[in-house]
Amino acid sequence: MPKLWNETIETHRRAVRDATLDITAALVTERGLRSVTMSQIAEKTGIGRATLYKYFSDVEAILIAWHERQVTGHLKQLAAIRDQAGDAVERLEAVLMAYALISHEHHGTELAASLHRGEHVARAQQHLSDFIRDLVSEGAEKGDLRDDVAPAELASYCLHALTAASSLPSKAAIRRLVTVTLAGLRPTR
Amino acid sequence: MPKLWNETIETHRRAVRDATLDITAALVTERGLRSVTMSQIAEKTGIGRATLYKYFSDVEAILIAWHERQVTGHLKQLAAIRDQAGDAVERLEAVLMAYALISHEHHGTELAASLHRGEHVARAQQHLSDFIRDLVSEGAEKGDLRDDVAPAELASYCLHALTAASSLPSKAAIRRLVTVTLAGLRPTR
Repeated sequence: MPKLWNETIETHRRAVRDATLDITAALVTERGLRSVTMSQIAEKTGIGRATLYKYFSDVEAILIAWHERQVTGHLKQLAAIRDQAGDAVERLEAVLMAYALISHEHHGTELAASLHRGEHVARAQQHLSDFIRDLVSEGAEKGDLRDDVAPAELASYCLHALTAASSLPSKAAIRRLVTVTLAGLRPTR
Repeated sequence: MPKLWNETIETHRRAVRDATLDITAALVTERGLRSVTMSQIAEKTGIGRATLYKYFSDVEAILIAWHERQVTGHLKQLAAIRDQAGDAVERLEAVLMAYALISHEHHGTELAASLHRGEHVARAQQHLSDFIRDLVSEGAEKGDLRDDVAPAELASYCLHALTAASSLPSKAAIRRLVTVTLAGLRPTR
């Protein structure tokens, strides 16, 4: 087959897949995980049930794929913030704030808890942890952050401290949490 | 019945109960939750199966009672540390260190995760959170800790930051985590 034709098929497949993920996530949010069936998803997506089963084995598999796409999107967003202009501390603060807001918006539900046990989440957490470690290390080298504790330990401290964001009531409270967390990283006198 | 006799029965009941909790916890640690039966527990405790069922409906109920006793013991231990001599910051540091060590020693297993979903844990966490809030408040009034963020928010920050302890490799690393967490609470210049 010519290359163009292959690309068209690939584009079509990705579009069907993306639509399936979006529709499933919307249905599960609306009705709860246990009330959503493959038939409903096929109907809403406008494809046959048999076709849907060629893509995914069950509703849970669709949700995991959807969550992987979400997590990858969040990581890209955080990496883009990291790559903005500014010194290491400014960029670290921006990344921590964005991460805290993501935790706040997306977590605390039972569905989130069950999806977060997946391996793709562990990988993403490691990736995030590594890049926060690198920002901390850069700030410590410049003398703007403490250098008496290993950057990897400080990154772990940050990510755990920011899990408090999921139960905070407002964006202002999340900003205070980020300020306090960052204060723990300042050099000791 | 005379009072003494009642007390003797009560003491005996408590002893049987305590022994049952200890033996069950030891068996579950050794063999795993699913391999332990009520018969084995009765045999090891030296009481009849019928008697055991008067105290507890199943193995899970025993484990929950055991965990409640553990959690209550830890809270008492932390309250005793809080009530030692010293200023608010010293006592807060001692409480945070003790809590981080408890988290480090007792968590990270699947059994711990399932027991931690219990209501008694939520109550104990609230209790701990309240008394850390009071220490933070005392330190802030004296000017030793920051007063630009509400003590309850700072207490939540502390407890979340210290959950990092469960994956740390050593007591020295836990001490560094407590130092960094406490640094977040210092007054801003």
